[in-house]
Amino acid sequence: MTYAIIGTGAIGGFYGGMLAHAGNEVHFLFHSDYNDAHERGLIVKSIYGDFTINPVNAYKSSKDMPACDVIIVGMKTVNEQMLPEMIKPVLKPTSLVVLIQNGLNIEKHIAEQLPESVGVAGGMAFICSNKVGPATINHLDYGFLNVGLYRGSEQMLHQFCDDMNASGVKTTYAPDLKEARWKKLVWNIPYNGMTVILDTTTECLMKNQASRALIYDVMLEVLKAADANGVHIPQSFADDMMDLTDNMRPYKPSMRLDFDNHRPMEIHYIYSEAIKAARESGISIPKIEVMEQQLKFIQSTYL
Amino acid sequence: MTYAIIGTGAIGGFYGGMLAHAGNEVHFLFHSDYNDAHERGLIVKSIYGDFTINPVNAYKSSKDMPACDVIIVGMKTVNEQMLPEMIKPVLKPTSLVVLIQNGLNIEKHIAEQLPESVGVAGGMAFICSNKVGPATINHLDYGFLNVGLYRGSEQMLHQFCDDMNASGVKTTYAPDLKEARWKKLVWNIPYNGMTVILDTTTECLMKNQASRALIYDVMLEVLKAADANGVHIPQSFADDMMDLTDNMRPYKPSMRLDFDNHRPMEIHYIYSEAIKAARESGISIPKIEVMEQQLKFIQSTYL
Repeated sequence: MTYAIIGTGAIGGFYGGMLAHAGNEVHFLFHSDYNDAHERGLIVKSIYGDFTINPVNAYKSSKDMPACDVIIVGMKTVNEQMLPEMIKPVLKPTSLVVLIQNGLNIEKHIAEQLPESVGVAGGMAFICSNKVGPATINHLDYGFLNVGLYRGSEQMLHQFCDDMNASGVKTTYAPDLKEARWKKLVWNIPYNGMTVILDTTTECLMKNQASRALIYDVMLEVLKAADANGVHIPQSFADDMMDLTDNMRPYKPSMRLDFDNHRPMEIHYIYSEAIKAARESGISIPKIEVMEQQLKFIQSTYL
Repeated sequence: MTYAIIGTGAIGGFYGGMLAHAGNEVHFLFHSDYNDAHERGLIVKSIYGDFTINPVNAYKSSKDMPACDVIIVGMKTVNEQMLPEMIKPVLKPTSLVVLIQNGLNIEKHIAEQLPESVGVAGGMAFICSNKVGPATINHLDYGFLNVGLYRGSEQMLHQFCDDMNASGVKTTYAPDLKEARWKKLVWNIPYNGMTVILDTTTECLMKNQASRALIYDVMLEVLKAADANGVHIPQSFADDMMDLTDNMRPYKPSMRLDFDNHRPMEIHYIYSEAIKAARESGISIPKIEVMEQQLKFIQSTYL
């Protein structure tokens, strides 16, 4: 299968880089980094081993890219409305679009705007990776990928998993995408926002009794919303997420990195969509509503 | 009537100073400012006119003070457990204790620890006043006082109102203390905490759509808790508080001043008691719970 990477940043650059490094045909869309990529390739510094893809199939616009079998989207969801037009030029009639993004209902919104024959999948990356310079990715920790199908060919998504695993990225196939998305939110909703709102780290949030209780309360609201949305996640999963975070190396959630760098935060797909899903199921998640509004306020102070 | 001022800070120093300036017998308890007060008096800079009480009846310990008819408490509630022992030496059998403090159930907690013959009242100060130096108070804006009886003699509290009004402080008698306390919380709960949590001003909170909606949601939770607690406050009162704040001069709530000066915040009586009252009435106020826990976390970062 051939691959198109839409958004060669921390996510697209790493996963696309791993695929290319293993010998797959990969075409990368760059934005401001195009010249650097063209001149000296895509540099990946990784705990799996450093490498450079040079020459790299680099493009300034997706209109110049060939149609590919799999389109990996690694962009933030903050410009999601531009995404369908960026994807369309690289589509074959039965391409599979894999959205390695954070949040809820991303697949639905993108699928509605693409031809019905095009498959759509969601990818949840458990990775600590940053873009540290032009076309230069630094992969610091983790790397695991979990993917689930929204629509299209199961076989093709399995093939994608095989390609990723053969490239050195541990990738699993989630039988229930909706459940996988909600499970990821159990961690993302409390920690992403609270490290921004309280200007702190996951470690400090876990050590203080009040914030620790608050994090857990927020997790329980995610479970409640998921349940109303038809996805039962046992409370022990929240306990597991607490344990996981207690034992994590110091880690800055992606929203905290966006905040630190004065970039837009992914409030809509991580918070607003979860609140909307809860409301449509007839329940409210007031603690998460507070976080959403606090984050919108904070974002307005620098954007 | 004779007066004892327990805590000669921004509140006690101003209201006690006004009473003394008008010719009442007032005894002031000082802490670290005792020497300055003794040497050059209590200085009050006020929009009502500057004055100095010199000599001032200044004491280092309430044990040295004479028993008085009215005991005005102007201390923050953060050391409330020390208060009964500080008050006892200045009590007559039928003294009236007026707690000019912020929050809920303060009167109940103090009354339980004082002789039953001693009257207890609550005072709500609408004032912008700071201690700007040793025994030096700066009264910047407003000044209005609203008092309500918790137990004891109505006549004595009316007499207190008369003395205050005669001293130039507009003071009203609230027929229902509980209602007056809850009404004050409609403003105090959203603005005090949110200016700290979001590191901002009342003005900025009102100008941003998300924080404005959040402030209003939190006000509605206060109304809900009050209602469950037997105090009906119409929603139009929340609208009035929004209008009031829209038209206020830039103002730092007392909790924001405490935070800025790395002092303890009055989280317990403003937040925790309201949450407890709601819970005891069988309801929850989750947005206010979030604020309480966020404030406790923030306080832990500097105390």
